[in-house]
Amino acid sequence: MTSRPATPLLDTVDTPHDLRRLQPAQLRQLADELRTEMIDAVGTTGGHLGSGLGVVELTVAIHYVFDTPTDRLIWDVGHQAYPHKIITGRRDRIRTLRQGGGLSGFTKRSESEYDPFGAAHSSTSISAGLGFAIANKLNGVPGKAIAVIGDGAMSAGMAYEAMNNAEAAGNRLVVILNDNDMSIAPPVGGLSGYLARLVSSGQFLGLRELAKRFARKLPAPLHRAAKKTDEFARGMAMGGTLFEELGFYYVGPIDGHDLDQLVPVLENVRDAAEGPCLIHVVTQKGKGYSYAEAAADKYHGVQKFDVITGEQKKPAAGPPAYQNVFGDTLARLAESDPKICAITAAMPSGTGVDRFAKAHPTRAFDVGIAEQHAVTFAAGLAAQGMRPFCAIYSTFLQRAYDQIVHDVAIQNLPVRFAIDRAGLVGADGATHAGSFDITYLASLPNMVVMAPADEGELVHMTYTAACHDSGPIAFRYPRGNGVGVPLPEQPLALPIGKGRVVREGSKVAILSLGTRLAEALKAADALDAKGLPTTVADLRFVKPLDAELIRKLATTHEVVVTLEEGSVGGLGAHVLTLASDEGLVDAGLKIRTLRLPDLFQDHDTPDKQYEAAGLTAPHIVETVLSALRHNSAGVEEARA
Amino acid sequence: MTSRPATPLLDTVDTPHDLRRLQPAQLRQLADELRTEMIDAVGTTGGHLGSGLGVVELTVAIHYVFDTPTDRLIWDVGHQAYPHKIITGRRDRIRTLRQGGGLSGFTKRSESEYDPFGAAHSSTSISAGLGFAIANKLNGVPGKAIAVIGDGAMSAGMAYEAMNNAEAAGNRLVVILNDNDMSIAPPVGGLSGYLARLVSSGQFLGLRELAKRFARKLPAPLHRAAKKTDEFARGMAMGGTLFEELGFYYVGPIDGHDLDQLVPVLENVRDAAEGPCLIHVVTQKGKGYSYAEAAADKYHGVQKFDVITGEQKKPAAGPPAYQNVFGDTLARLAESDPKICAITAAMPSGTGVDRFAKAHPTRAFDVGIAEQHAVTFAAGLAAQGMRPFCAIYSTFLQRAYDQIVHDVAIQNLPVRFAIDRAGLVGADGATHAGSFDITYLASLPNMVVMAPADEGELVHMTYTAACHDSGPIAFRYPRGNGVGVPLPEQPLALPIGKGRVVREGSKVAILSLGTRLAEALKAADALDAKGLPTTVADLRFVKPLDAELIRKLATTHEVVVTLEEGSVGGLGAHVLTLASDEGLVDAGLKIRTLRLPDLFQDHDTPDKQYEAAGLTAPHIVETVLSALRHNSAGVEEARA
Repeated sequence: MTSRPATPLLDTVDTPHDLRRLQPAQLRQLADELRTEMIDAVGTTGGHLGSGLGVVELTVAIHYVFDTPTDRLIWDVGHQAYPHKIITGRRDRIRTLRQGGGLSGFTKRSESEYDPFGAAHSSTSISAGLGFAIANKLNGVPGKAIAVIGDGAMSAGMAYEAMNNAEAAGNRLVVILNDNDMSIAPPVGGLSGYLARLVSSGQFLGLRELAKRFARKLPAPLHRAAKKTDEFARGMAMGGTLFEELGFYYVGPIDGHDLDQLVPVLENVRDAAEGPCLIHVVTQKGKGYSYAEAAADKYHGVQKFDVITGEQKKPAAGPPAYQNVFGDTLARLAESDPKICAITAAMPSGTGVDRFAKAHPTRAFDVGIAEQHAVTFAAGLAAQGMRPFCAIYSTFLQRAYDQIVHDVAIQNLPVRFAIDRAGLVGADGATHAGSFDITYLASLPNMVVMAPADEGELVHMTYTAACHDSGPIAFRYPRGNGVGVPLPEQPLALPIGKGRVVREGSKVAILSLGTRLAEALKAADALDAKGLPTTVADLRFVKPLDAELIRKLATTHEVVVTLEEGSVGGLGAHVLTLASDEGLVDAGLKIRTLRLPDLFQDHDTPDKQYEAAGLTAPHIVETVLSALRHNSAGVEEARA
Repeated sequence: MTSRPATPLLDTVDTPHDLRRLQPAQLRQLADELRTEMIDAVGTTGGHLGSGLGVVELTVAIHYVFDTPTDRLIWDVGHQAYPHKIITGRRDRIRTLRQGGGLSGFTKRSESEYDPFGAAHSSTSISAGLGFAIANKLNGVPGKAIAVIGDGAMSAGMAYEAMNNAEAAGNRLVVILNDNDMSIAPPVGGLSGYLARLVSSGQFLGLRELAKRFARKLPAPLHRAAKKTDEFARGMAMGGTLFEELGFYYVGPIDGHDLDQLVPVLENVRDAAEGPCLIHVVTQKGKGYSYAEAAADKYHGVQKFDVITGEQKKPAAGPPAYQNVFGDTLARLAESDPKICAITAAMPSGTGVDRFAKAHPTRAFDVGIAEQHAVTFAAGLAAQGMRPFCAIYSTFLQRAYDQIVHDVAIQNLPVRFAIDRAGLVGADGATHAGSFDITYLASLPNMVVMAPADEGELVHMTYTAACHDSGPIAFRYPRGNGVGVPLPEQPLALPIGKGRVVREGSKVAILSLGTRLAEALKAADALDAKGLPTTVADLRFVKPLDAELIRKLATTHEVVVTLEEGSVGGLGAHVLTLASDEGLVDAGLKIRTLRLPDLFQDHDTPDKQYEAAGLTAPHIVETVLSALRHNSAGVEEARA
């Protein structure tokens, strides 16, 4: 404790109720202390730093002005909510952020009544806020909704869908556009250019202009007020902002670090708005911590670091990350194949597309937070003869499910899906887990679905996807580093729907898909030592299944166990369905499926998560032994 | 043939190449004949009428001006493409529209090179168009992309995501906003109001204004041209349209039925645009057919009709449609429960929410084509204590998959999903089939998934969902009419995860989910007659499964068959997984799963589709007999 920064004022603020007892003049000091505390805490834990630093003043001002938690404050994405957590009763646990059993790195309903809506994926806050606002309106109870959303998140379609519906909330909805000209990477697209023009068109609104505006008591949105033709003509001539055109009263731009401006603006909006308001606040990501301000990514996500030097703990050197193996391989393949393109939805470095883009800038597309568009755009490219790779995290690909079904699979277009962050993901927790992609993709006709067992296999699968022009193909691989196998000199085009036997046995067969293969091999050793010779197959494909191999193993082994980093409905279900279709189970074959459990697992280290999920070697061994015990206990007992 | 209208000019136009040989002065006559032909054809087949009538002139003008199929014309949704089909080589089959083996009611790649991108779900055209445009740009070959998109479709997020990325296409992308102030229902939301203001702000652009505009050779989008401060200031003062702010050059509004205006505008855009263009065209849905113009829904979708009288063939009277049973039940429940709300995404009558809205207007929300927003909005309502029912077709709910996972299931919020059009849907074909929802929902922790066997069960399930406050719950039911059972006076709250035995047997057990129950009962009669006493259970729930019932049936019957109107990964997979987890199959139990086949089925009557899918009584019987034969053939043979 002794090394922690002195925070005498912050020490008096446990909740927003304490905050609201302060004088306006004290808020500056509180913000400074809050920032210091946050830097110190994230130095201890690692996590998202830049975004939280950018909203320290905004956090203080919102809680000071609005009546949280009756007024519902919704942080879009939620990774900028560390300062919010500190002043909403969670300061004592702030140094457990993202650790197993500790605070979530995002907002979470179960943590606090001040988190009315959990987040982690972007662009949900306005829709949720509308729900809160309208529920209160219908019930005739107090409570506004305040959605704080970044400019990057505004590029997602669902934010637009919500804005298009905002008018129904009346003055109970306040949207604060936190414009820091950054999401994780620099922003892209027309909206970003538009916001930049709004900001650069003049200085921030001065207090005098603000006063003038509010003297008019925030008239209703332009098009409602403008019923008379002359007013209408004036309105058109003035040019409403994009937000006004969608029904908001627009206030801004405002300096998001100036509490003397923020507080009165928020007060006016709170008291005087007649319809939904959008406050355009300009902030600086990483604000107030020189190392973060200076860094290109503004310390978006950091390891533990030394507060004085800004130096982050280097992660232990190791095998290359899967994303980089993918990006480098694709870049290499594209040297001799001018049809290859790569698409990312605002995750250039997270997906390895940055490496492709460096080598082939005209064929790399960062479409912003816009997964739906990314997939259908890729479908259009494929329909015109290109070989597009859509590199999207498993959890975010859920955003584009209909586009995968309707635009890609039904039309059988050869879009390649490079699905990173498949399986459990560690500190980001349940919201970022890639649990469902095997299930939601392998059920689709025309789709090919692969998973590499290691980074060498990923090289082969990237090439296999490039060669597969007859329809869509997906390959899914985990977050983090490979296992350290040498990368193949020459990538192979794998035969579609064929697995490989990695280890030969006779009594037990483990059918593995993906990187649990290492655990399968460990389990096989242990089973062998118990006198149960064990075959291990790396299926490589869940769709199409290697029916021939499965048939052979099922008819020559006593127990078959499937193993995957995915939910029910995936590999296990497909193997069981095949076995049932062909009557393989009729003969008394014991099949067991190891898969993710039927619950959303909280954040922890990936190893602990997989341990909890029951997907490690000891669990595999126990599953086999239990199946054999069931056998020896006799058929009749099971039927009794 | 004799009764068909005379179409002398149209008879000379088989493809756009023929069209482009006409003089501009002939186009009016061609459009008139095309409209007559279309009305006559749809009178014969039924189908989408109003939308196609609205774009007759647009269809003629686009093909006249642009070099299709090298220029890629993409009709958003595609249900307005009947005139397009007539003049792109498919006139000889136009009276097979939506019939089994006939033309699709939407655009379809396999039908014609003039359909470069199939559609049916809305709002995909700009993304796809960008793909085509950029592929051609990268390859340095000719070819623009023209996306024709309605004002209703513009409310979907993915259209916005695509517009936000349009600049990359340069002048190869032309978006034609077909503004008829209608999707299926009247449009909702801020964008709709905005478009109405644009249109009502003045007359259509006259030719003189157009000439002036094009004299400036369509300058690049405002924000690129506006690098100099003074220009910039002027730009801001003028007020760009929303589309200009996103990077388009905006032209309009233009009368979409005036070929003398359409053709020169399109020519100018084709020749002179320096960046992506958006042409705002105002059309009238149902144009040129007085009965359609007069109807509230503009004959959006019609039965076969008499061209002279406009009278539609009445569908045979029968039991109520599932959607209406749902809507009426919910309206009744809401009389005594002020927390119940209903949400539709632009399908008020298709989902039965119109009936709820009539009774409870303040608690009904039509959010436009915005499924993502619909679900997260519902999550917000639920988090604030309401009981929201999200009524969305199975196929469209795919648009909101991530919102279901991230905002509803992970937070365990009690959003109720009323999923219409589950299973095969008939004339709308593969794009509208509700094949995957069991699979993609039942794999989610916290989710409850039900399917009623008939409309009486639907009443119970609607009430069951209303009573279920502890987490999300979904119920899925087919398109079309119920089976004619009496509706229960008093709805029951069904016990969660419990099925019911409908018929008792001893040798064969059929586990049915949904409305195939009738086929299961027929099959049971046939099996009984063959000396195979058959139990039929209506499981009601696929998640949670009735493990107790399944365990009991599996241990007391020789063959178990599951039956569902869904893809692999659904009920069958869940039953197999349970049986495998518990070792029920080890004892030599024969389980077979009947499900939708692994292909996208083309349009036909639902009966023929289910016949082709192998989900009728004879298929069930044959599956049982085959399983029993496999048994008698002996275990060793299966293992040989």
